[in-house]
Amino acid sequence: MSERRNLITDVAGIHVGNAHNARLASGVTVALFDQQTVASGVVVGGAPAGRDTGCLDPDRFVEGVDAVVLSGGSGFGLDAATGVQAWLRERKRGFPVGNMRVPVVPQAICFDLLNGGDKDWGRYPPYRELGYAACEAADLSFAIGTAGGGYGAATVDLKGGLGSASAVTSGGFTVGALVVVNAIGSTVIGEGPHFWAGGLEEDSEFGGLGLPTKVSPEMRRLRWKGAPEPATTIALVATDAVLDKAMTKRLAITGQTGLAKGLRLSHALTDGDTVFAAATGRRPLTDRNNDVIEIGATAADCLARAIARAVYEATALPFPGARPAWKDKFGSQLR
Amino acid sequence: MSERRNLITDVAGIHVGNAHNARLASGVTVALFDQQTVASGVVVGGAPAGRDTGCLDPDRFVEGVDAVVLSGGSGFGLDAATGVQAWLRERKRGFPVGNMRVPVVPQAICFDLLNGGDKDWGRYPPYRELGYAACEAADLSFAIGTAGGGYGAATVDLKGGLGSASAVTSGGFTVGALVVVNAIGSTVIGEGPHFWAGGLEEDSEFGGLGLPTKVSPEMRRLRWKGAPEPATTIALVATDAVLDKAMTKRLAITGQTGLAKGLRLSHALTDGDTVFAAATGRRPLTDRNNDVIEIGATAADCLARAIARAVYEATALPFPGARPAWKDKFGSQLR
Repeated sequence: MSERRNLITDVAGIHVGNAHNARLASGVTVALFDQQTVASGVVVGGAPAGRDTGCLDPDRFVEGVDAVVLSGGSGFGLDAATGVQAWLRERKRGFPVGNMRVPVVPQAICFDLLNGGDKDWGRYPPYRELGYAACEAADLSFAIGTAGGGYGAATVDLKGGLGSASAVTSGGFTVGALVVVNAIGSTVIGEGPHFWAGGLEEDSEFGGLGLPTKVSPEMRRLRWKGAPEPATTIALVATDAVLDKAMTKRLAITGQTGLAKGLRLSHALTDGDTVFAAATGRRPLTDRNNDVIEIGATAADCLARAIARAVYEATALPFPGARPAWKDKFGSQLR
Repeated sequence: MSERRNLITDVAGIHVGNAHNARLASGVTVALFDQQTVASGVVVGGAPAGRDTGCLDPDRFVEGVDAVVLSGGSGFGLDAATGVQAWLRERKRGFPVGNMRVPVVPQAICFDLLNGGDKDWGRYPPYRELGYAACEAADLSFAIGTAGGGYGAATVDLKGGLGSASAVTSGGFTVGALVVVNAIGSTVIGEGPHFWAGGLEEDSEFGGLGLPTKVSPEMRRLRWKGAPEPATTIALVATDAVLDKAMTKRLAITGQTGLAKGLRLSHALTDGDTVFAAATGRRPLTDRNNDVIEIGATAADCLARAIARAVYEATALPFPGARPAWKDKFGSQLR
């Protein structure tokens, strides 16, 4: 790896693109794989909405996917994958069936319909075109914070956003995470500024404030978006390892523990928490069991760190009542 | 609730019993329900061994269970439920089928076969009788630490054990957790003494040391029992709420995030991490969605706290090479 970006694109074979509409206050993020890539996933929230997630279990036929979409728009946002499929079809990409190719594009959405943006889009929602635009923008570098699928996102107390992080395991495998943080709970301990993921922070990537020595009962009081306001944290974890589909599902299962490390709370009845996993197959395993264990645990770390980075990098939406950005509240505490 | 024990038995309708064999260096813990109780569960590890877990999904026929068993012994320990079934049958307990009653006793085990104990038990393993003895010992009070199913348990760096904790939600529901900590990874940050669950500690229940302000790369270095040494953290979370079987599964799903909060690492390829959930049905929900969210998140907290308490209260086994107890290493730092 030439230059580490601390983004999921450090995993060879992945480009990421964002698109948003500021008036809509929502957007789309796409992770494009450079070829059909082994993928799986787990839906751990009780209120998910997704598209083409049924093919992700190891007992299903299609092994590879062409892209993964994380978007806003709730159920209306599910059109984003249509735009991604169109972009892929123009490039003759997809699962071959006779002389046709069907692009396989699993997607998850988050609920950002009540964030102050203009949702009066007429007959059809704009997510299809946002999905296409996100593909056009795909690159190795991409913005995090108030960007793409996280443009309109929020946690219970702060502006949410799009996050990403990467790491290299002791075995040399690159691992990364990409996440839209629209969590039902919070990323920060009490009123902040410390992040629940503070023990996992690398190189002051989300402020370098560490952890508080004592967490009082008030600081750990459970706070969540009161039901039935839906919420969701949706993510992709990825590695350059060669994994079969079953081990890619294991990567998703171990990886989703990053939600628990980065959020208080997650996996709830009214969130749609979903974690996709992909293995781009550049680097064979050398010690199968230990490699899989370390890649999974590293993916969990990356996901927790990406969650904190999403909130740390976010800027607030310009609407009345919009939740504040972390840096607006705590930026003065940074050295 | 008259007297809070900070044990899962604070949840009305549950008694817990332990039995162990010191020479075997293993044992059994049983949670006995006072009547057939709605239960579910999730198997999140890649190397589980269990018994009667197939009935736990909401789409299965049997809704209630009579007991849950957490034991040592790996696959041989699965006999423990036989002893529990025998004890229940003598009391005419179980799922009625014609004039028969079949006690329903889901069980999970942990791998403690290489801990120095004498495993030369002859033809049949002793877990059946340990299961029966655990039922005989069942009470509202029970030992944690080196006790019952956690007697022979260990983490990667310290003696493991049996843990438990409880809490009451803002809605008045009592929630508790019971856990055998034989984790593939560690409960402590770096070399210790701080617990990963330190931000969730109530009333100095595991030493009151809080959190370190900074966690260095060395302190968060991933350490695990090298594959293929199996490991497992197995748990029961419970509430006195009236939940149907589907919401009890949701309790298990949200509750298992406690593994991620208390352990570094969990949900791995070679652990058998399993979390059962039970709802003893004493207190109806008043605000269904928010109650379920808070009960689940509180169960996760209780599970993370119970994991730390298991290690905090453990005493070391007397065998050469046995992993040290937390208090042996760090007890002098307690005030």
